Amino acid sequence: MDIKIIKTTQPKEKQAAEKLAFGVTFSDHMFVMDYTEGQGWHDPVIMPYGPIQLMPSSMVLHYAQEVFEGLKAYKTPQGEVQLFRPEENFKRMNRSNERMCIPQLDEEFVMNALKTLVKMDQDWIPTSPGTSLYIRPFIFATDPFIGVRVSQTYKFMIIMSPVGSYYKGGLAPCRIYVEDEYARTVRGGTGEAKCGGNYAGGLAAQEKVHVKGYEQILWLDGEKRQYIEEVGTSNVFFLIDGVFVTPSLEGTILSGITRKSVIELLKSWGETVVERRITIDEFYELHQQGKIQEAFATGTAAVISPIGTLGWQDKEMTFNNGEIGEYTQKIYDTLYGVQSGHIKDTLNWIVRV
Amino acid sequence: MDIKIIKTTQPKEKQAAEKLAFGVTFSDHMFVMDYTEGQGWHDPVIMPYGPIQLMPSSMVLHYAQEVFEGLKAYKTPQGEVQLFRPEENFKRMNRSNERMCIPQLDEEFVMNALKTLVKMDQDWIPTSPGTSLYIRPFIFATDPFIGVRVSQTYKFMIIMSPVGSYYKGGLAPCRIYVEDEYARTVRGGTGEAKCGGNYAGGLAAQEKVHVKGYEQILWLDGEKRQYIEEVGTSNVFFLIDGVFVTPSLEGTILSGITRKSVIELLKSWGETVVERRITIDEFYELHQQGKIQEAFATGTAAVISPIGTLGWQDKEMTFNNGEIGEYTQKIYDTLYGVQSGHIKDTLNWIVRV
Ligand SMILES: Cc1ncc(COP(=O)(O)O)c(C=O)c1O
Ligand SMILES: Cc1ncc(COP(=O)(O)O)c(C=O)c1O
Repeated sequence: MDIKIIKTTQPKEKQAAEKLAFGVTFSDHMFVMDYTEGQGWHDPVIMPYGPIQLMPSSMVLHYAQEVFEGLKAYKTPQGEVQLFRPEENFKRMNRSNERMCIPQLDEEFVMNALKTLVKMDQDWIPTSPGTSLYIRPFIFATDPFIGVRVSQTYKFMIIMSPVGSYYKGGLAPCRIYVEDEYARTVRGGTGEAKCGGNYAGGLAAQEKVHVKGYEQILWLDGEKRQYIEEVGTSNVFFLIDGVFVTPSLEGTILSGITRKSVIELLKSWGETVVERRITIDEFYELHQQGKIQEAFATGTAAVISPIGTLGWQDKEMTFNNGEIGEYTQKIYDTLYGVQSGHIKDTLNWIVRV
Repeated sequence: MDIKIIKTTQPKEKQAAEKLAFGVTFSDHMFVMDYTEGQGWHDPVIMPYGPIQLMPSSMVLHYAQEVFEGLKAYKTPQGEVQLFRPEENFKRMNRSNERMCIPQLDEEFVMNALKTLVKMDQDWIPTSPGTSLYIRPFIFATDPFIGVRVSQTYKFMIIMSPVGSYYKGGLAPCRIYVEDEYARTVRGGTGEAKCGGNYAGGLAAQEKVHVKGYEQILWLDGEKRQYIEEVGTSNVFFLIDGVFVTPSLEGTILSGITRKSVIELLKSWGETVVERRITIDEFYELHQQGKIQEAFATGTAAVISPIGTLGWQDKEMTFNNGEIGEYTQKIYDTLYGVQSGHIKDTLNWIVRV
């Protein structure tokens, strides 16, 4: 399948690096491809970024059959363009597709499409520290039909947005609240998929913790409200008594690519990493004993977010005196260094465009 | 606020009653209204049914912040146009809005908008037995922004579709399977809201039961996988030893308007209705004892669906010899009779347009 290319005749003006927010402005082009049952994915095109037409009956607007991904492109000091483990995103997207009954993508084909798109819009990749080009592949159901069933048509798109830091203020310890009223998902639900419904469902809890003076939610499992799962749009790690602990993948949390990379990185440093179930009760107990040395969240948007304080019911736990932990900083520096091309990619994570 | 009215200049051709499927064709007009933070709902308009423009970054396409409703308009034998308890739909929509962090609607205003729209397109209401005009109000987030937060802009729309029966074949006993692997929702989740994510999340289970030779899913609670919740897009009732039992509203199932009406109807007949938690184990035991006399599902689309067979793990339970129960038929006849104007509306459910 050849990708049709329609170049913009009206390139947009780029924003100054210091003005970049997250996910507000978009680059000049986007990738679009349609799916029709019996025909498969067809009519791939790169075209000027702009509005799309949908029938009001489009299934995505009613039943949220939709998945997305998020990854970043960086420009190295040498001016090369690189992506961080993009094949992992398309693999995960296909796993999300499976859970949401959306047809599989040809991973090689979309990787090629992504590279072509990034190359075309490479001038949109900002280069100031902490900035990057955020890439958003997504798929949604387009059948003009309002019965509840699997759609027979879909749109796959890639849009790109030059971004500053996701969390305003950059690498600074954040305040997280343990949510034990709202649930994000449950065993047998969609927690493992990167589907829209998980995020809409979490908004009410997000609003609640904001009012309480926290920035993000630490989700507990939906069944027992005991097991620590993940933080907002990130996975979570703790340094406990010299050992790194992160919740194991039990089917209810997103299998983060940053999480995977942090595990590999720590192991390459000779550290011990344990993926296991850990309850909030056990965690609180360990904190009381002074055994929680560092805590941080991992995700594409912020890379690493140090957790300074964890609120739980009427208690507050502070880690490393509310300051960025030594390992947390080192992990951030290394990961971000590799992503942005300032540090050598010894673990083979980088894909050059 | 005045509703601007733009009449179509190209009325579409209507389909023959026997050709009507569910949710495929739409009437000539639709209602659209926008919301902007700080300004509230604005620019209500009735205009020709047709495509809408969305930015690819529109939040609904990524995070599924969206809710919907479903109700029906009928034309009586006297040619009057009537709606079935529409105020209940807008009340529920506002409850869904609250859970999904979507701004509240002015229920009186949207009721008036709905009536105006139905009146304009009243020729689209089919009159053959079992047919009606299905009405779909829905709201979705339109912020052109891909960070995870509550949207600041929304679109509210009402579209309408002349429909035959939802389940092909009309009032006939259906085969339902008890799902104990996938979960629809959990305490603290979005089960009570009529939001897109609940439906996308259920598709995989729906596909699974189709393969097994069943038509719909009976959901169990997400926590213990024991308590009976609801059936696909319907609530569920059982006639057990002379008493009608339906799962109580514990925050995880939709508070169905048909469910509410069936309860009121049965009580008006002097029947006993108990809303309570009931486990699948207890239910199976009761079935073994021959105490389950009838089983049926209730929902706007199909009104009443008799349940002939319930599959659970490797067992199958049959009710009333797999035939439509006496009460089931009587409830259907009465409800549908009132809705379509063939029976007197003694319980004050009907709103004339
Ligand atoms: C719910 C959730 N958990 C975890 C993550 C982290 O995954 P990744 O490291 O692949 O960005 C994300 C964001 O991408 C997420 O949305
Ligand atoms: C999940 C779910 N449960 C129950 C119902 C039945 O509700 P109502 O009787 O209001 O149509 C519906 C459909 O509307 C539904 O989608």
